[in-house]
Amino acid sequence: MNIAIIGLGLIGGSLALDLRANGLAHHLIGVDAHPEHGEIALAEGLVDEVASLEEACTIADLVILAVPVNAILKLFPQVLDYLGPDAVAVDMGSTKAHIAEAIAAHPRRKQAVIAHPMAGTEFSGPKAAVNNLFQGKVAIICDQAHSSPHAIRRVERLFKSLFMRLIYMDAEAHDLHAAYVSHVSHITSFVLALTVLEKEKSEANIFNLASGGFASTVRLAKSSPQMWREVYEQNDQNLVDVLDSYLEKMQAFRDHIARGEFDQTHQLMEAANAIGRILEGGQIRAPR
Amino acid sequence: MNIAIIGLGLIGGSLALDLRANGLAHHLIGVDAHPEHGEIALAEGLVDEVASLEEACTIADLVILAVPVNAILKLFPQVLDYLGPDAVAVDMGSTKAHIAEAIAAHPRRKQAVIAHPMAGTEFSGPKAAVNNLFQGKVAIICDQAHSSPHAIRRVERLFKSLFMRLIYMDAEAHDLHAAYVSHVSHITSFVLALTVLEKEKSEANIFNLASGGFASTVRLAKSSPQMWREVYEQNDQNLVDVLDSYLEKMQAFRDHIARGEFDQTHQLMEAANAIGRILEGGQIRAPR
Repeated sequence: MNIAIIGLGLIGGSLALDLRANGLAHHLIGVDAHPEHGEIALAEGLVDEVASLEEACTIADLVILAVPVNAILKLFPQVLDYLGPDAVAVDMGSTKAHIAEAIAAHPRRKQAVIAHPMAGTEFSGPKAAVNNLFQGKVAIICDQAHSSPHAIRRVERLFKSLFMRLIYMDAEAHDLHAAYVSHVSHITSFVLALTVLEKEKSEANIFNLASGGFASTVRLAKSSPQMWREVYEQNDQNLVDVLDSYLEKMQAFRDHIARGEFDQTHQLMEAANAIGRILEGGQIRAPR
Repeated sequence: MNIAIIGLGLIGGSLALDLRANGLAHHLIGVDAHPEHGEIALAEGLVDEVASLEEACTIADLVILAVPVNAILKLFPQVLDYLGPDAVAVDMGSTKAHIAEAIAAHPRRKQAVIAHPMAGTEFSGPKAAVNNLFQGKVAIICDQAHSSPHAIRRVERLFKSLFMRLIYMDAEAHDLHAAYVSHVSHITSFVLALTVLEKEKSEANIFNLASGGFASTVRLAKSSPQMWREVYEQNDQNLVDVLDSYLEKMQAFRDHIARGEFDQTHQLMEAANAIGRILEGGQIRAPR
């Protein structure tokens, strides 16, 4: 397949590495608004050529949009305008409802698939690309009935070639669940980093005292502000709901400590421990 | 050296593994209030014998207290009562000011060292013991002047044998910094877990949608409630201060999203990104 990847960052670059390695891509075309990303992607052998959006979409069998979610809103309709009659386009955005709206009325809507591979790291840009980023992770395909069976099959083939597990839900449900389980954990990391940076004036103290626990909790605070501001913008209502719940629980936890109610903190922590049992419920295996 | 380890959990068990491997311990004596922990420690070869507190302290050259911090308050004076004239006792607790008070007036105070190795995992009990848990991490020795030079040297030898980096501060300062950099990140994890568990009724959704980012942010929520309630109890004032700052910042972040002020969220995230630069400031190396 000729595969065009729009956006040669962490996700686009990592896709390029895997799709070349697993043979799904016979020819990889990169598109990026930043010329230096295109140069790095060529130099590192991520893609075979760098082209304009129109050129790439015209010759590709599969176009993958791997840009921040506001850029997807703008580019997805253009990609569909340029797409050949048998070609398929799919986006990799972390939010789905606004993206679904942006292409809802497009005459080629059936050639489009809306999806979210739940994979990433705290790094960004083409140099952050790594092999096997997607292996064993979940890919969500949204609003399946709005795409043609041909388009869904091609995107399923894409994700299965990456050893991802497929699940299906509608775009609104996706955004709600993603707020709970993915988006809010980035915000708690950013806020923890801000708190420690303000309170600890000494960089040496942060560096010396940060145990492994702190480093893993705050890891996501290194994430791209540009990517995440757009996620907040597109998922604002769900996020405000979850953050209100989080704030209420944090206030209660703080108040228990302030009042010396340590039995209550114990009970809350025992309830929280359940998350371990759920997360360890089983490793997701690569499909056969 | 004959080394007695009081508390055969994650820390005590991991110490036993390393001190046998590196040759510092010629004979390892375990003490644990739970008989089944002693049995596991013997069966897994962590210690050579299990003894009572008095027996262990009488024959040991070095006694290591690796129990939760409230138990340290109670046991540290007893350990000093039993200690031989050349022997040294050191605790591994996550808080230091109350422990310093508990032994301040003891006639054998000079034989005691107050310390905190900044290492751990979210698991507990003797089966959680792992090799090389301490390597490359920081060990803090507090109130150095209250211990004899002989006692300090013996504890420095202990931590250096584990390839830890030593830093020195007073007990009050330790508790303040530990609240910022270690204790509060556990609370943010517990609260995140509680929020997601309440909002996501479906265990399958949490399991399926939890990406690597969520799993690492919430990892500490698996930690021991008993250990942590005692840390909160002994470091309550510092924790309330840091949590107030955290709550204020989280409220501001939530309000920016609710008001559509995404430029402001962008600025906050850029400021938070500085934590990455500080944490990556350099790997702590094993001392020569």
